[in-house]
Amino acid sequence: MDKIKRNERLGAMTRILLDTPNRIHTLNEFCAMFGAAKSTVSEDIDLVSASFDRFDLGRIETVAGAAGGVRYRAMPSPEKVSRVLGGLAEQLSEPGRMLPGGFLYTSDITSEGSTAQAAGEILAAQYYDSKPDFVLTMETKGIPIALMTARMLDVPLVIARRDSRAYEGSAVKINYIAGGAGERIETMALARRAVQPGQRALIIDDFMKGGGTLKGMVDLMREFLAEVVGVGVMISTARPEVKRLEGVKSLLVLEGFDLETDRAIVRPSAEFC
Amino acid sequence: MDKIKRNERLGAMTRILLDTPNRIHTLNEFCAMFGAAKSTVSEDIDLVSASFDRFDLGRIETVAGAAGGVRYRAMPSPEKVSRVLGGLAEQLSEPGRMLPGGFLYTSDITSEGSTAQAAGEILAAQYYDSKPDFVLTMETKGIPIALMTARMLDVPLVIARRDSRAYEGSAVKINYIAGGAGERIETMALARRAVQPGQRALIIDDFMKGGGTLKGMVDLMREFLAEVVGVGVMISTARPEVKRLEGVKSLLVLEGFDLETDRAIVRPSAEFC
Repeated sequence: MDKIKRNERLGAMTRILLDTPNRIHTLNEFCAMFGAAKSTVSEDIDLVSASFDRFDLGRIETVAGAAGGVRYRAMPSPEKVSRVLGGLAEQLSEPGRMLPGGFLYTSDITSEGSTAQAAGEILAAQYYDSKPDFVLTMETKGIPIALMTARMLDVPLVIARRDSRAYEGSAVKINYIAGGAGERIETMALARRAVQPGQRALIIDDFMKGGGTLKGMVDLMREFLAEVVGVGVMISTARPEVKRLEGVKSLLVLEGFDLETDRAIVRPSAEFC
Repeated sequence: MDKIKRNERLGAMTRILLDTPNRIHTLNEFCAMFGAAKSTVSEDIDLVSASFDRFDLGRIETVAGAAGGVRYRAMPSPEKVSRVLGGLAEQLSEPGRMLPGGFLYTSDITSEGSTAQAAGEILAAQYYDSKPDFVLTMETKGIPIALMTARMLDVPLVIARRDSRAYEGSAVKINYIAGGAGERIETMALARRAVQPGQRALIIDDFMKGGGTLKGMVDLMREFLAEVVGVGVMISTARPEVKRLEGVKSLLVLEGFDLETDRAIVRPSAEFC
């Protein structure tokens, strides 16, 4: 193999780090791949890291110690977070998104890949230190954002279902109080084998109104003897002010609807501005 | 701003291209960002492209013409496809994945971010030329793979539901024949506003047995006057041999179960080997 030049290494190294967010790569791995000395690879990493810092593209971090190496975390800057959430609030405030019954049409936005990715990056950045073992969501609309959050954290995604399907094997089922138009009892189920006792759960969903579904997920984790280390959503409603669950981080707040202009009033959450 | 060196540009440019798969960036965009001449940026792109080729990391393609520029497509090589599918087949053949009723436990694999990403890259590569306007899937288990396929193609994901929920507005509902334990009539629904007449749909799901659900999605698209340009799944079963839908591309084939070793027999599809 020809000697590989720095110019060639930089693009390849960037690609590999970005493809495995939050996963630590040893310098030796890159040394072997490029046939380069550790000091050389280390300089390469500094270059990529400086370039990411300069253009607000995320962090390339060096982790010291025996299990050390280098990893990529998206870690969007406050300016980027504010820009992303501002853009989302604007999209959600477009006329025509109001649905009968005080609902907001969000499916096209929550299931758009680059939006889910951007939301996932912001949410993941809140929970690196909580070291979750997995992300839990409830089908259906939260899945894209939860998946991207899980991918950024490099942990599996676990999806609770409305009913336990035959093809998931034995399951734990709970009842919970769902909000919406009048309170009602609903069921959520999760495959027994999906979660191990003592694991740390990060709960992510797209929307919170009363907080009933999120509270249900917390209760479900209790059945599995798992610890909930955080709860994050993309949008929460300003009303009711008191939710069934406290400490939920929300990217956006739905203040209400302006009936005259046929628009939802959505703004970035105070804690993200 | 200091003059930005090539070493700094390469990492940043790679990051930006990877973050927006299949989206064309003009050279002017990078010229403005880096304060560099077009010829310089063009050389940068050649360097990243060569490095990606050399290490099998995807393609950085230059697109000629008025709407031209540069874009990233994952386009895994046959060797990489074979390695990824071989690894998936092995994981799915682990003992203990057989469930009562001839089902296979796949949820942990299909909802794992990097697996969904890898499957999405392989599926997307099959359909760039079909130019879909969106990816359609049916809740729930196909969502992660469909989302990643959509993200690779830079098109939206559209999710059909088992029932039309109040918060999605007016919906089109159809009945379809689902397989599984005995045939039965099921319902799928999709928000009226999710698809426009004349749009091109790529249907992606995690699993095909009889093909009833996929056929349902094809029928649903007919109601919307949308054209189905392809159908892809992660796993299909070898039996029944005749499916309700032809021309489905499957990454993996579930041949059956070995009751003695408590293992599923899964292999990469012939067309991907």
